[in-house]
Amino acid sequence: MLNTLIVGASGYAGAELVTYVNRHPHMNITALAVSAQSNDAGKPISDLHPQLKGIVDLPLRPMTDVSEFSAGADVVFLATAHEISHDLAPQFLEAGCVVFDLSGAFRVNSDTFYEKYYGFVHQHPELLAQAVYGLAEWNIDALKKASLIAVPGCYPTAAQLALKPLIDAALLDLSQWPIINATSGVSGAGRKAALSNSFCEVSLQPYGLFTHRHQPEIVAHLGAEVIFTPHLGNFPRGILETLTCRLKAGVTHTQVAQTLELAYRDKPLVRLYQNGVPALKNVVGLPFCDIGFAVQGEHLIVVAAEDNLLKGAAAQAVQCANIRFGFAETQSLI
Amino acid sequence: MLNTLIVGASGYAGAELVTYVNRHPHMNITALAVSAQSNDAGKPISDLHPQLKGIVDLPLRPMTDVSEFSAGADVVFLATAHEISHDLAPQFLEAGCVVFDLSGAFRVNSDTFYEKYYGFVHQHPELLAQAVYGLAEWNIDALKKASLIAVPGCYPTAAQLALKPLIDAALLDLSQWPIINATSGVSGAGRKAALSNSFCEVSLQPYGLFTHRHQPEIVAHLGAEVIFTPHLGNFPRGILETLTCRLKAGVTHTQVAQTLELAYRDKPLVRLYQNGVPALKNVVGLPFCDIGFAVQGEHLIVVAAEDNLLKGAAAQAVQCANIRFGFAETQSLI
Amino acid sequence: MLNTLIVGASGYAGAELVTYVNRHPHMNITALAVSAQSNDAGKPISDLHPQLKGIVDLPLRPMTDVSEFSAGADVVFLATAHEISHDLAPQFLEAGCVVFDLSGAFRVNSDTFYEKYYGFVHQHPELLAQAVYGLAEWNIDALKKASLIAVPGCYPTAAQLALKPLIDAALLDLSQWPIINATSGVSGAGRKAALSNSFCEVSLQPYGLFTHRHQPEIVAHLGAEVIFTPHLGNFPRGILETLTCRLKAGVTHTQVAQTLELAYRDKPLVRLYQNGVPALKNVVGLPFCDIGFAVQGEHLIVVAAEDNLLKGAAAQAVQCANIRFGFAETQSLI
Amino acid sequence: MLNTLIVGASGYAGAELVTYVNRHPHMNITALAVSAQSNDAGKPISDLHPQLKGIVDLPLRPMTDVSEFSAGADVVFLATAHEISHDLAPQFLEAGCVVFDLSGAFRVNSDTFYEKYYGFVHQHPELLAQAVYGLAEWNIDALKKASLIAVPGCYPTAAQLALKPLIDAALLDLSQWPIINATSGVSGAGRKAALSNSFCEVSLQPYGLFTHRHQPEIVAHLGAEVIFTPHLGNFPRGILETLTCRLKAGVTHTQVAQTLELAYRDKPLVRLYQNGVPALKNVVGLPFCDIGFAVQGEHLIVVAAEDNLLKGAAAQAVQCANIRFGFAETQSLI
Repeated sequence: MLNTLIVGASGYAGAELVTYVNRHPHMNITALAVSAQSNDAGKPISDLHPQLKGIVDLPLRPMTDVSEFSAGADVVFLATAHEISHDLAPQFLEAGCVVFDLSGAFRVNSDTFYEKYYGFVHQHPELLAQAVYGLAEWNIDALKKASLIAVPGCYPTAAQLALKPLIDAALLDLSQWPIINATSGVSGAGRKAALSNSFCEVSLQPYGLFTHRHQPEIVAHLGAEVIFTPHLGNFPRGILETLTCRLKAGVTHTQVAQTLELAYRDKPLVRLYQNGVPALKNVVGLPFCDIGFAVQGEHLIVVAAEDNLLKGAAAQAVQCANIRFGFAETQSLI
Repeated sequence: MLNTLIVGASGYAGAELVTYVNRHPHMNITALAVSAQSNDAGKPISDLHPQLKGIVDLPLRPMTDVSEFSAGADVVFLATAHEISHDLAPQFLEAGCVVFDLSGAFRVNSDTFYEKYYGFVHQHPELLAQAVYGLAEWNIDALKKASLIAVPGCYPTAAQLALKPLIDAALLDLSQWPIINATSGVSGAGRKAALSNSFCEVSLQPYGLFTHRHQPEIVAHLGAEVIFTPHLGNFPRGILETLTCRLKAGVTHTQVAQTLELAYRDKPLVRLYQNGVPALKNVVGLPFCDIGFAVQGEHLIVVAAEDNLLKGAAAQAVQCANIRFGFAETQSLI
Repeated sequence: MLNTLIVGASGYAGAELVTYVNRHPHMNITALAVSAQSNDAGKPISDLHPQLKGIVDLPLRPMTDVSEFSAGADVVFLATAHEISHDLAPQFLEAGCVVFDLSGAFRVNSDTFYEKYYGFVHQHPELLAQAVYGLAEWNIDALKKASLIAVPGCYPTAAQLALKPLIDAALLDLSQWPIINATSGVSGAGRKAALSNSFCEVSLQPYGLFTHRHQPEIVAHLGAEVIFTPHLGNFPRGILETLTCRLKAGVTHTQVAQTLELAYRDKPLVRLYQNGVPALKNVVGLPFCDIGFAVQGEHLIVVAAEDNLLKGAAAQAVQCANIRFGFAETQSLI
Repeated sequence: MLNTLIVGASGYAGAELVTYVNRHPHMNITALAVSAQSNDAGKPISDLHPQLKGIVDLPLRPMTDVSEFSAGADVVFLATAHEISHDLAPQFLEAGCVVFDLSGAFRVNSDTFYEKYYGFVHQHPELLAQAVYGLAEWNIDALKKASLIAVPGCYPTAAQLALKPLIDAALLDLSQWPIINATSGVSGAGRKAALSNSFCEVSLQPYGLFTHRHQPEIVAHLGAEVIFTPHLGNFPRGILETLTCRLKAGVTHTQVAQTLELAYRDKPLVRLYQNGVPALKNVVGLPFCDIGFAVQGEHLIVVAAEDNLLKGAAAQAVQCANIRFGFAETQSLI
């Protein structure tokens, strides 16, 4: 039984972590923590997330002293802001915890990336080097012995699951950059008061054109340039990505299909479509990334869908934990 | 041509006022104002409300000096917070303007009401006595010579339009209080950052049980007790109210129908249903209140629907102005 | 291990049954059936309900010969139309199955009810007498030995869970009929092509005023008259009911609270609110009925929320099965 | 005063035409027609589209005899199915009417197009040659003397308004095909009962990959190849298109901006964004196409938004009529 701490449990991904860990037969929640300044400190989590009422009613404890929480914890999930994760992860690592960080703080091993895209200078280059990128289907061996796991961003998860096998198999003509049009539910912006999140202001709209930090995250891990255009959609959760790519001359529909099947044949949380492409509703509330595609001549369109809070965050974090500790990959997820 | 000032144009009802007044052949917008502290001061209104882009791009001017705005203004619409309206209305009246206040600041002529329900002690009892309640279909004569018009609240408009003719005609057994279940779109909470308004937090839910300030507003003007239960709905605009009443013994469906028809036969902005009851979508974006009903024995259910920002706010304000200045009642509204 | 057949698995409640039974440790799905005429016959259920892809991909088998399906089945869930359930239940009972019927076919033991409200003359009065009404929290003893369980309607479940303890404790003045305003998601209308269900046509609207067949179902089982006004809401699933009642003179908030607590203290699928009332989102996707209330003088407002497909259908059916066979009441539900 | 007939008034675009023509000072509605087989024949249009109640309550007359309708009509709007328009247009032209066809029946002057993409062999090649494509901003001179106007498809309108000036000015490197990702509201599928349109089935999803007939319509009129990927969105109306293009070497942000400004400087129904890009809500209910863009190196992303029923259908049809008859281009539209 792994003693498990969830930090940042007040957010949407945090609440999903609580749900998964609570029903995990090999993990038990030792505490739910929020920052000491949080207005939510002291409240039962079910006050913020009433779906948990009667299931998990633990209080959100203010994290004034990290050592109080790290003592006795085997596993820590950080569903915290990037800067907070950046500061907390080393402390929990030092205390001997295995750390699963859902923020962007340890995803890209680069000097300049954090200053440019996250607005802070990273203080822990040695941890950047050591962190394992938790794109679960692709990093199983590394995950098994990792102590710091950087759970991928929501958009990059779906994008990479769609493109990585095709790039690795050299099916794409990358001189024409894959174009990723992605639409995310509003929960991607976090649980907070903001005019831009308010019900009457939300409608389908692109944002962050050419500037979103998930673009360099994708590029860093794929090793290929892409154009990434995120959109806000008028739904609470889910991400749908439509990726338009150029195939190398002569590459066929069958080759694409076989390449994807080979990549994901034993991967229970990636579901491939023989015909057609996924709709958003197919994955909302579920831990899967669904992938379908169509080919016409040299043109390939891949469609990938996931729940941004699950395969794009909490479920992938737990999937990584399952791999790390030798449990069934889908334990407590389906 | 009436020189018209709109204060609080940054809000949702304010933007609707701007649309109506802009296309009014007998009114012209002299300025759009916001409070001096507003973050939006100086911006074109179409930055906040992009639907107005190319139609009205006037700046939101900070109201530092009221006299600067009142000079030369014939008409002022106050789409401001209650306390602000309370303070501004006397100043504009003194400057000779006709004032249409969309807030609650002058709706109920009572000593205790404002302290109890709005949290401030009213400083202008003489204006409370003088203000005309702008339930347009029912106060035409008074509106024609009013200088301060208190535009009714969104919920009270639909509730009173449904009940007033029936109560006036003595069809209801009021010993059993009419029960008003009402559901409003999120725009009713105003244009602001608030967790409770955020896209992922909104779902159908009752609020303010037994304590909403629109209950005493309804009671004060109907002269009858009611139970009023508002709900937040997962849609941006519109109000639907289902009112369950007891008929006096022997009152028939036909009497109810005739009473409503008599009341609204020449009222173009109230639409009666011969059969069935309105759906919310019938009125969204339109200046109407739609009313239908059903009778079974002594039981009467009336359903009233309106757009909370239009017949429940901006359209009724302009309707009042049309009546006040002798224009066609529906001028620029349909 | 109970061999379990699900008939009508193509519908929304059917798909939820499939999900629950599939993860039930003491049940296994022997077949999914649809009517022989269904266009969906032969398809994998995950073609219709893609969320099940990779979880349950069993085909929807056309039910041409009942005996082929009843042979070897211990348990049958009928998520079928009322008339179909009426015809199938006796056949499965005769074959020795325990039958859980989610339709209205066996809910009310009355000669005239079916002709008046369902449009057919009931052919099995002996089964009407024998059927146990599966309002799970209230019929545990009868459920334990039932062979035909009539799972309550979606609206009646929430209404009765809210009212029954209060009526049984004689807290209500029933001379004033409780008024139930209820709003249901569109899935309540079933999975079918209909203009009234189409995305652009749906908006909040009352329907079936004074004529909905769930009103007499509620009345029959509560033994008290009520006014029931259903509304269609613009969301896929969930029901929220706002019940306005009159308390007997002198009944206090505390008495209401204690009565509810006493009724549901050991009932894990009814969640009581100490403060406030539930929002719809608190229960969507979950097997609970959440209940809160407010009192003012003699007036009581109770708010009950549930997922219409879960506590209002599939989850309650499985809860009944858990009780019937001696499993934990919440087995596979939470 | 132009006597105006609207055929297919029962549909969503039809109802919008009714609204516009009804308030047009130089047009009057002589009749609303539907096919003789329609279930809606004989009903007032406001039964189908209750927003029109009290505004236009004319009956939907079954079109049994075309000559009865064409006699005395100056203008005909056909908001009918492609095959119906194909058959009706010649008859109304022969009767001397000016015909505005909102279907696809006369949009592309090609032998093979209709058989391949619409499933019928076109019988009126001479009309295909004669029809003027009503992309209003670009065909003003031809529109002024047209007798048959083929109003463009909803998707092609936004796509062409975004791309045409850039292609005409030779700013794009077309060896890399522009990639058009477009998302439309459900009203684009028409007013009909269909499982795919039903509330619980709709969620964001791509469809018609590489096969949608609006792709060849765009290509035919732009004279350039494109990849067009439509998506269904979970909203009733509006289209947002994100177009990813390659600029010719050296082309700057300023050149793109100036080219768009030059194209649309006197075009009141195209609104250009100096900064940022449009959101869907900016145009819903409005007759505009809004366009914004971003440039990074050789990469250009253009975002175009419109209401699919308005600038993508009814508003553009009336805009064409305004141009054809010499009225102000925006008459009755804003």
